[in-house]
Amino acid sequence: MSKHGMYVKFTTQTGQRDSLAQILLKAAGQMQEVDGCELYLVNVTENEPETIWVTEVWRDAAAHQASLTLEGAEELISQARPLIAGIESIKLQTLGGKGI
Amino acid sequence: MSKHGMYVKFTTQTGQRDSLAQILLKAAGQMQEVDGCELYLVNVTENEPETIWVTEVWRDAAAHQASLTLEGAEELISQARPLIAGIESIKLQTLGGKGI
Repeated sequence: MSKHGMYVKFTTQTGQRDSLAQILLKAAGQMQEVDGCELYLVNVTENEPETIWVTEVWRDAAAHQASLTLEGAEELISQARPLIAGIESIKLQTLGGKGI
Repeated sequence: MSKHGMYVKFTTQTGQRDSLAQILLKAAGQMQEVDGCELYLVNVTENEPETIWVTEVWRDAAAHQASLTLEGAEELISQARPLIAGIESIKLQTLGGKGI
């Protein structure tokens, strides 16, 4: 049974990558208690100063959906929104491997 | 200190996705004993029948490099090579989050 994975690419407003990364790392901290969230990693790249990639794996789509309404999520989303110029995502079916 | 991450996109020969996925899952199994490998996940997508994404996080680039010469790696690589039409990768600096 595959899991609900995704790569989410954030394009930030100019100069806002590190601020947004801090907010996303806080979001990752909140996910520690969320049992349907199996992976939530914040990544940057070497040569794209306005790009952040978040790697996510969820037990299923419902667990992901529920996380958006968790206490604290709304606060972080409202902090993040002005820093974001664009969001794209690659939806994945995670078959397995090492780490989850 | 960020870790050495990457998203590797395999484009397979027609009809070879599932065969390659099995080989990559075997590779993930071999990574269980490799302490520099922190994450190695095999993913497919819903609507791309020739695409596999592998999500990797390594302690550092050296740990990744060393894994390519491990016993068993060469055998799997030679099994996989004829099934592969193309490989692209997004190199990442993994800042942190939940799951590693």
